[in-house]
Parts: sequence; C-alpha cells; structure tokens
Amino acid sequence: MRVKDQNFLKIKNQSIVLEYIIKNGPISRAEIAKHMEMSPTSASRIVASLHEEQLIKEVYLHTDDIGRKATYFMANEDSVISVGVEIDVGVIRIGFMNLIGELISEHSFPFNTDSYERVADFIGQTVNELIDREAITNDRVIGICIGLPGLIDNKEGIVELSAQFNWKLASLKKILEEKLDYKLFIDNELKLKALAEYLRTSMDYKNIAMIGFGNGVGSALISDGQIYRGKDNMSGEIGHMTLDPYGVYCPCGNFGCLQTYIATDFLLNEASKTRPMKHMNELVQAYNEGENWAVNIIDKATTYAVLAINNVVCAYNPDAVFLSGSLIEDYPEIREIIIKKHSNSNFFPQSRSYELHVTELEGNGVIKGAALSVLRRFIKNLHVKGDV
Amino acid sequence: MRVKDQNFLKIKNQSIVLEYIIKNGPISRAEIAKHMEMSPTSASRIVASLHEEQLIKEVYLHTDDIGRKATYFMANEDSVISVGVEIDVGVIRIGFMNLIGELISEHSFPFNTDSYERVADFIGQTVNELIDREAITNDRVIGICIGLPGLIDNKEGIVELSAQFNWKLASLKKILEEKLDYKLFIDNELKLKALAEYLRTSMDYKNIAMIGFGNGVGSALISDGQIYRGKDNMSGEIGHMTLDPYGVYCPCGNFGCLQTYIATDFLLNEASKTRPMKHMNELVQAYNEGENWAVNIIDKATTYAVLAINNVVCAYNPDAVFLSGSLIEDYPEIREIIIKKHSNSNFFPQSRSYELHVTELEGNGVIKGAALSVLRRFIKNLHVKGDV
Repeated sequence: MRVKDQNFLKIKNQSIVLEYIIKNGPISRAEIAKHMEMSPTSASRIVASLHEEQLIKEVYLHTDDIGRKATYFMANEDSVISVGVEIDVGVIRIGFMNLIGELISEHSFPFNTDSYERVADFIGQTVNELIDREAITNDRVIGICIGLPGLIDNKEGIVELSAQFNWKLASLKKILEEKLDYKLFIDNELKLKALAEYLRTSMDYKNIAMIGFGNGVGSALISDGQIYRGKDNMSGEIGHMTLDPYGVYCPCGNFGCLQTYIATDFLLNEASKTRPMKHMNELVQAYNEGENWAVNIIDKATTYAVLAINNVVCAYNPDAVFLSGSLIEDYPEIREIIIKKHSNSNFFPQSRSYELHVTELEGNGVIKGAALSVLRRFIKNLHVKGDV
Repeated sequence: MRVKDQNFLKIKNQSIVLEYIIKNGPISRAEIAKHMEMSPTSASRIVASLHEEQLIKEVYLHTDDIGRKATYFMANEDSVISVGVEIDVGVIRIGFMNLIGELISEHSFPFNTDSYERVADFIGQTVNELIDREAITNDRVIGICIGLPGLIDNKEGIVELSAQFNWKLASLKKILEEKLDYKLFIDNELKLKALAEYLRTSMDYKNIAMIGFGNGVGSALISDGQIYRGKDNMSGEIGHMTLDPYGVYCPCGNFGCLQTYIATDFLLNEASKTRPMKHMNELVQAYNEGENWAVNIIDKATTYAVLAINNVVCAYNPDAVFLSGSLIEDYPEIREIIIKKHSNSNFFPQSRSYELHVTELEGNGVIKGAALSVLRRFIKNLHVKGDV
C-alpha cells in the first residue's frame, strides 16, 4: 500500500484532458479550464505537455470579422496507431486505428487456422508488412491486441482452450513476441467486442452485457467502463452453465450445458438425425420452407436463447444486453423469433429494467474492440502500465 | 467530467493512511512515511489532520532502557460508531461497531415482521434507545445500514420485493428518516454478508462470490473490494435463472427457476406430498432416518446446489465461493453432501481455479456487513459521499 503522489495526479489529469480534447476539440485553453473546473495555469501546463508529446495539435480559428485568430487544440489523430487483430475460423482480420478511435484501414486474409504456430507466423509477418507498406513508423505503434474465441489467459497471453480451432495451451503471445517488437495483448473476442459496443454507445450505460450465440454461447460484461474478467479472464462462460445434470452430453465432459441447447454444432447434430447437413444455412432453409422438424428445432433453440438472456440478466443486472454472434447476425429470421419471444417473456422483476439490443457492430467488431483496448490502455495510463 | 484536484488527493491519502494505522498501529510517523513511500512532511501533515479529527490517538512507547519515549499513533477506536441492523423473519438484530471494525455490542429482538411500518417504527425507537442507554453521543454515529433479504433499491432505500416478509415497494428509508437523524442505508443482506466475508478474509481474494441457500437462492459478488450491484442492485438473483422452461411453477410467474429445485419452501412442498410437514427439521430428520423418499429429495436438491455453484462460477469466475444460508449453516449433513458432490464434480475448466469455502461468519454476518459498509464508506471518503 502506498499513498497517491503528484505523479499519479498528473497522469490521471493528462488522461482526462486528452480524452476531453479528443471528444470536444477544437477547443481553447480557456474552455478546457472552464469545463474541467481547473485553473488556467493547470490547463496550460497539461495542454503544453500533451502538445509536446504531439498527442494534440494547434489550430487557429478566426474569432471575429477583423481577422483576429485564436489558438485552439484538437487531437493529433495520426500521432499514434493501435493494431487490432481477429483470428476467426478460416480468416484473419487486421485493422489499424488512430488516436481518435477511427479504423484507418482494414485487411482480411483467408487462412487455414488449424495450427496456432502457423497463424502466429502469419500475423507476425503480415502486421510487419502492413506497417511497412502503409509507411507507419514503428514508434507510432502503441500496441497490438489479438482477439479470438475461447478461454484466453490475457495475463500470460496463452490460449487455454479454443474449441473453434481445437487449440489447447497455445502460447500465442510468446511466439508473436519473437516477430513483433510492440506491446502485445491476447484477449477473448467477445470481451473485446463488448468493449467496442460500450464505446460505440458513448458509454450511455454503466453496465452492459453482450451475449454471443453461434458455434458456442458466451457472454461478456462491461462494468463501469472496464471489462469484468474474473480470476482467469473466464467470466461469462455461460455456455457451460448446467441446465440439466441429465441433459445432452457436452464435449466439456458434463451433461446439459446451456450450449448443448443452442450452439450451432448441437443444432446441426439434431437436424442431421432427420437429414444429414453440415451448415446452418441448410437448417435455416428447411425452417424457412416450413419443414416441421426444422421448425421444432428452431423453436426449441430460440426458447433457450431467451432463457440465456434471462440468466445473464439474473447474474449481472445490466443496463442493456446486446445480442451478437452468427445466429443473430447472419440469420435475421432467427434473430426476429428471439426478439419476439423475448418481448413476450415476463421474467420478473429484471424484465422491467434493461434494454435489449442487437449489436450494431458489423463484421469488424472484434478488430475495433482489440484496437480500442490498446488505445484506452494508452490514454488512461499515458506511458504507465495498467489494465483496460 | 472534471480533473482531480489536490482535495481529491488529500481525501484519498487520508483514507489510505487511516486504514494503514487501523491495521498496523501503534506506528510512528517515520514508519508511516517509510512504508507508504511518502515524505516525512506529508506523513506528519496527514497524521496531524487525522489526529485533529480524533480518528487516531497518540501512545508513548519506551524505546530503550534509559526511559526515552517515542510517539506512536493508533486508531482511536471509540471515535466513531456505525450501526448495523438485520431484519430477519421474526427477529431484528442490531449491532454497534467501532472504528477498527469490532462489534462492541449486539442485540437481538424477537419481532413480528409482517408489517414494514411496524418494523421501521421498532428499529427507529430501539436504535435511539440503545444509543441513549449505551451513552453514545449522536455526533459519533456515522451512519446506520439495514440489511434484509429481497430486491432492495439501495439508492432510494425502497424494498422492491421481499418474498420472505411479503413486502412490496416498502419505503423503509423514508419512514426511518423521520425517526433516525443519521445517515441511512438499506441494502440486500447477502450483499452485506459477502462484504463482511471479503473483509474477514483480509482481502486475500480479488473477487469472491457468496451463494445463499435457504428459503430462496441468491448470490453476491464482491469485485475488487466493491459490491457488484448492477443497475438496480439486483445482480446475483440466480434463484430466478431458468433451468427448464417447462419446469415447476415459481411464484415469480415463470417455470423452472433454479430456486424451484432447491429453496426450502419447494423441498417442503415436495416432502409434504409424502408426509405433511412445515419445517426443514422434519425433512432432515426423515433423511437422517434413511427414509427413502427423503433421501431422494435431498439427493436431488444437493445435486442442484452443486449445479448452482457451477453456474455462479461460469458467470463470475471468482477466486473463491463462500456458501451460506440456512441449508448450509443449520444442517451439517446437507452441507457435507454438497461439499462431497462438489469435490466429485468436474466442471471444466473453471473447476481448477477457485476455492470453495463455507462461510465462517456466524449469526451476526449481516449486522457485521451492514456496519462495515457504513464504516468503509466513512473511511474511504472521510466526509465525502460515495458508494462502498
């Protein structure tokens, strides 16, 4: 335990002022001092220090008709670059983000994701090439964050388990450190996507939960602007909540996990008992054509999706729940049934108190969240380490 | 948004130093400065300010054989009093706590808890009488917190719903404010008990979850030393997680809520189909006598208790789970089955990563937690408002 010193205060206030200028610039020193309730001297000192680090730039605006000019400050958007990477099944996405949180370029590469060593090699090489090609100088890159589905130990940078890729104890960070000379972070994709959603909604909410329905079921909680991680970054693993100890067997070794009721692999397994199939498109087509067995499968799955929403709300009591994942984003007909069943449900008393939304992030939600997590860490700590 | 000023730093450091002296006193100015990495001047200034407010006191210790004395500081334990109150079915408990977190007196009053107006009247009158009788001067009372089971709006001080007492929208705080001229807080009892458990374990853990099994099922999360509340202080309401949308009807209006598998009212309802009974003692006796039907009921209930632990762990990924509530605390035979079944369970992968404990708080866990919540608010903010 130690007391907080002037340096703590300085870093904290630099961060607050920088965030304010990013959102509200161009703005004058006087306005900064006024809106942030600080003395003009303090405002000038902090502005000078941010300007010296080239995180903000001066602009001159005419203030009256006779041509007098005043000095305003705004974010120097190109001063830093954060890199967000998504590893998805069969594809790797890479995005570059500037200081004001805009993706300045996005790249998508089809890639066989069977081997994590080959994936790490490819990411290392490609990120370096893109940085060269786009003439980004190394000292502007403040860090790289890689998001992927699974149980990710974000402290050690290890993929504990990723069912999607069939990876176990993959030391992704260690391999990448040999190739990329930047600060590196590895994280769970849904947690990053939830962070992006929270920032997209301009932090209108104190706590939001995101639920991902796809080849697995998971959730993520953003509380007071922070990713709630739990002990091992494994919070929100609702796919392995048990509903029925004598239910359907789950590869995790238990019976009746929530995901056995709704994850796409399990739905396809059920459907294949009637007609062999390998892709949700086929099941949804059969549903759309009114085939009775397909209607039954989708009916049950959507009932359990609403139940999953209720269970997340019981645990977290969030201000808002955002639905995401392939079942929600790729199949509007399934999304609509879930939303309709949810509006007819009456889970008491939490039902009164939260808003249900479908994610408005598009395909780049994970790279956005990954890059934003690096950017926020940078702004919040301005050269001091810490969690987002 | 505003920057943090010197006053913020002063309050923060006063709190940190006061907490340090409470835990480590008697301690000298020099030791404080050294351990807390601050200048002797700063240490002296903060110590003087805490001394002026009479929150710490001087003690003189002999430092050598020739009788020289040195000045040390320790908490002035009687300087403030916080009051913790528990409303339980048929009984009201009141405790007084000093600055160092010791309960200095406890009182228990059998009381018909049917009407919240009468309960509030009784608490108001009794707390005032106890303060008079124990010669506590009003200016030493830093606040009163009242804990009870149910959905409690802690911001407004309203009991939204308490099934145990059959209260709805009970404006407890408003009534009490007419009778008690102190800072007043109303909160959920399990959240307060979890806070007491977290502080009892000397904060060895970053995140702990407490689960209460009794006439209802609930959980509470302490994250980074704070009660995780969610939007309406309704986080952790796992009793209404749905396990089976076609399960047993729950008074909440839905089917198959977790509590229908394990809350004592539901177990008694099942047992009464074989032999009419009104109290868990009768069911546990039949179980102990090896009556087959009672063994079946307890077997199923304990399986679902382990399932509830797993589901809480999936949501929160805590460092430790503490079990509490009447099923756990009053019936060692049931507690032991749950612990044994849990040790045989293999919920992957969270099973590797958390410790399971039975609460070591005794009957006064709620009044301790309530009084501690007032005390922590006081110490953390030293006259500035804020949440615990």
